[in-house]
Amino acid sequence: MAFSEAEQRAMARALELARRGPRSRNPQVGAVLLSPSGEVLAEGWHRGAGTPHAEVDALSHLEGDAARGATAVVTLEPCNHTGRTGPCAEALIAAGVARVVFALPDPGDVEGGGGERLHAAGVDVESGLLADEARALLEPWLTARTLGRPHVTVKWAQSLDGRAAAADGTSQWITGPLARADVHARRAQADAIVVGTGTLLADDPALTARDDAGLRPTQPVPVVIGRAQIPAGAAIRRHPHDVLHYPTRDLAAVLADLHDRGLHRVFVEGGPTLASAFLAAGLADRVLVYLAPTLLGGSRTALADIGVATISQQRRLAIEQIDRLGDDLLVVARPAPSAPEGGS
Amino acid sequence: MAFSEAEQRAMARALELARRGPRSRNPQVGAVLLSPSGEVLAEGWHRGAGTPHAEVDALSHLEGDAARGATAVVTLEPCNHTGRTGPCAEALIAAGVARVVFALPDPGDVEGGGGERLHAAGVDVESGLLADEARALLEPWLTARTLGRPHVTVKWAQSLDGRAAAADGTSQWITGPLARADVHARRAQADAIVVGTGTLLADDPALTARDDAGLRPTQPVPVVIGRAQIPAGAAIRRHPHDVLHYPTRDLAAVLADLHDRGLHRVFVEGGPTLASAFLAAGLADRVLVYLAPTLLGGSRTALADIGVATISQQRRLAIEQIDRLGDDLLVVARPAPSAPEGGS
Ligand SMILES: NC(=O)c1ccc[n+]([C@@H]2O[C@H](COP(=O)([O-])OP(=O)(O)OC[C@H]3O[C@@H](n4cnc5c(N)ncnc54)[C@H](OP(=O)(O)O)[C@@H]3O)[C@@H](O)[C@H]2O)c1
Ligand SMILES: NC(=O)c1ccc[n+]([C@@H]2O[C@H](COP(=O)([O-])OP(=O)(O)OC[C@H]3O[C@@H](n4cnc5c(N)ncnc54)[C@H](OP(=O)(O)O)[C@@H]3O)[C@@H](O)[C@H]2O)c1
Repeated sequence: MAFSEAEQRAMARALELARRGPRSRNPQVGAVLLSPSGEVLAEGWHRGAGTPHAEVDALSHLEGDAARGATAVVTLEPCNHTGRTGPCAEALIAAGVARVVFALPDPGDVEGGGGERLHAAGVDVESGLLADEARALLEPWLTARTLGRPHVTVKWAQSLDGRAAAADGTSQWITGPLARADVHARRAQADAIVVGTGTLLADDPALTARDDAGLRPTQPVPVVIGRAQIPAGAAIRRHPHDVLHYPTRDLAAVLADLHDRGLHRVFVEGGPTLASAFLAAGLADRVLVYLAPTLLGGSRTALADIGVATISQQRRLAIEQIDRLGDDLLVVARPAPSAPEGGS
Repeated sequence: MAFSEAEQRAMARALELARRGPRSRNPQVGAVLLSPSGEVLAEGWHRGAGTPHAEVDALSHLEGDAARGATAVVTLEPCNHTGRTGPCAEALIAAGVARVVFALPDPGDVEGGGGERLHAAGVDVESGLLADEARALLEPWLTARTLGRPHVTVKWAQSLDGRAAAADGTSQWITGPLARADVHARRAQADAIVVGTGTLLADDPALTARDDAGLRPTQPVPVVIGRAQIPAGAAIRRHPHDVLHYPTRDLAAVLADLHDRGLHRVFVEGGPTLASAFLAAGLADRVLVYLAPTLLGGSRTALADIGVATISQQRRLAIEQIDRLGDDLLVVARPAPSAPEGGS
C-alpha cells in the first residue's frame, strides 16, 4: 500500500465529511475527488437513506468529463449493487475515474465487491488508508451489517473494588462530575439507551443526554427491558422520544427489534442484573467501566453472575483506552477472544 | 527556599548513599559535605542501629577543621538527642559547618529539633530539597515514627469487576507474569509478608521473594494471622526465615509486635478476609491493586465487608500511580481523607 500525501489529506477530509451525514440505518460515508496532480476537484457525503452515496454526490458537482483520470478517495468501499441509487462502482467507472482509494472494505454480502468490480474495469484500487479511524466511525454500522444486530455498549460505574453501591444501597456519588458528563456525551452518540426495570423503578432516570445548557440536540430513544410496568409518573415518560418498553428477558429479541427500527448504537446503562445478562449472553461489543478511586466492599457488586463458572470461562477484555476523568478512570474495552497470558 | 546546583546534585547523591544502609529500625540516611565552592568534601551514610549517623560518618572522613564553612546536605533533619551516638546537630556545630540542607524534617518528638538547634547556633538551615524522593525512601520509617506501628501495604489481585476467583474458586491466573514478578520484587522490599490462615490453608504459599534466578537475596519474614494451625508440611515452614504465627484476629496487637521486632514494612497479601479486616480497621497506609483485564462476575469478591454501611463512609483513595504491567494494570493508592468531589 502506498498513498500519496494528497490522498492521506483527502481521506482525513473524507472522514470529516462522513461525520456530517446523519447516523441512521445507512453508513456515514465521505468522498473526495482528486485531480491527477492531487488537487481537490469535489467533495461529497451521504445524507441518509434514499439520497446519493458519497461518491455520486461528489461526482455530481463536476461537469462533463472533469473526473476523467481522477482519484476517488472514499471512507468505505464503493457499493456494487443497485438499490434506491445506482451502484457507485459503475458511476465511478462511467466518470472515467482512474484510481479509487478506500479506508474500509464493505463486509456486506449484497453491496460488497465494488472494489473488485472497479479493478476488473481497469481502475487502480487501494484500501486500508486511515482504516482505524474509519472503523471507529462505522463500527456500529459494521456490527449491524456483519452480525445483523445493533452494536451494544455496556456501561457501568463502580468503585475500584467493583461495587455499585454501599451496603445500604446508597451510591450518590461514586464517580465525579467529569465521569457523569462523559456518560451524557456518549448518550448523545447513541441511538438507544437501555435500562432494566430494576433501575427504572429504583432511580426513576430521565435517560436524556444533557449538558450544562440542558437537553442536548440529539437524544437517544429510551428503552426499558423487563416485565415490570413503567409507572404512570415515571420521568422517562417525559423523554423527548417515546419509550420503547419490552416486557421480556429475551435480549436477542429486543436487539432484533431495535435493529429493525434502525437503532444501531445501543448504550446499556444497567443496572447490574441487565448489564450482567448482556455480558452473559455475549451481547456486549464494548464495555465502558467508570472506576472511582474508592473502596466500598460488601455485597452490592456492579456486576452479578455473568456465567463464569470456572476460570477458563473468564471474559478476557482487550483494553482500548484508559482515560482519567477528574479523579475517576474510564476503561474502554472490548471482549478479547484470545486466551489469557500464560504464567509461572 | 533556594538551593544551588551543587546542593541539588549532593542531595541526589545523599539519597543514593542512604539506600546503601540496611532497612532496619533506624532510618536510611545519607549525607554529603560540600566546600563553600560546592566541591564534595566527604560522604557518609548510616549503617544501622549503634553505628554513626550519616552526618557523623561523613565528618569522620575529614581531618582537623576541614569542615569549617562547609555545607552539610542530609536526607533527614539532623538529630538533636544523645542516643547510642551523640546528637548530630552538635557534631555539625562543633565541626564549624556553616549551612545545613536537609530533605525531610524528623517528625519524632525525641530527636526532632536538630534544625532549630543548628539555627540557634547561627547555622544557615534550609529544608525540603528532594523531599518527595526522601519521603518515598523513608515512608515506612516515618509511619513507624509518627504512628508507632509499621507501615502497611495491602495488596490484592482482581478482575476489572473486583473478583479474586471464578465461581468455583479457581483463579490461576487472573493476572499475568509481569504483575506476578512485580509482586515478588515488592516482597523483597518488605520486612514482613502477611497472610491469613485462609490463604495459608487454601494456597500453601511459600511467601518467598523470587525471580527467574530463584530466591532473591533479601527475604521478608513470613507472618500468618489467625487461629487455625499451620500444617506440619506447609511450604511456609521451608521459608529462609522462621514463620511468625499470631493465633489472633487482633491486627493492632500483631502490628505492635511486628513494630517491636523492627519489622516496619509490612506487606499484606490477603486473602480477601484479612485484606478487608486491615481496611476496615483503617490500618492500610497503601493499597496495591493488580487489575486484570477480565470479567468474572459472581460472588468471589477480592474484598469482603470493609465496614462501609452507607456511601458517606466510602473509603476514598488518592491514586499515586497507575502502571501497565503487560495486559494488567497496577493501581497504587493511599487513603484520601478528603470528601469525594461534589456533583450535579
Ligand atoms: N453502577 C451503575 O453503573 C448502575 C447503573 C444503573 C443502575 N444501577 C443501580 O442498580 C440498581 C438496580 O439494579 P437491578 O440489577 O435490580 O436492575 P436492572 O438490571 O436495571 O433491572 C433488572 C431487571 O431487568 C429485567 N431484565 C430484562 N432482561 C433481563 C435478563 N435477560 N435477565 C435478567 N433480568 C432481565 C428484569 O425485570 P423484570 O423482573 O421486570 O422482568 C430484572 O428484574 C439500582 O439501585 C441502580 O441505582 C447502578
Ligand atoms: N486475589 C488475591 O490477591 C488473593 C490473595 C490471597 C489469597 N487469595 C485467595 O483467598 C482465598 C482465602 O481467602 P480467605 O479470605 O478465606 O483467607 P484469609 O483472608 O487469608 O484468611 C482469613 C482468616 O484470617 C484470620 N484472621 C486474622 N485476623 C482476622 C481478622 N481481623 N478478621 C477476620 N479474620 C482474621 C481468620 O483465621 P482464623 O479463623 O484461623 O482465626 C480468618 O479465617 C484463597 O482462595 C486464596 O487463593 C486471593
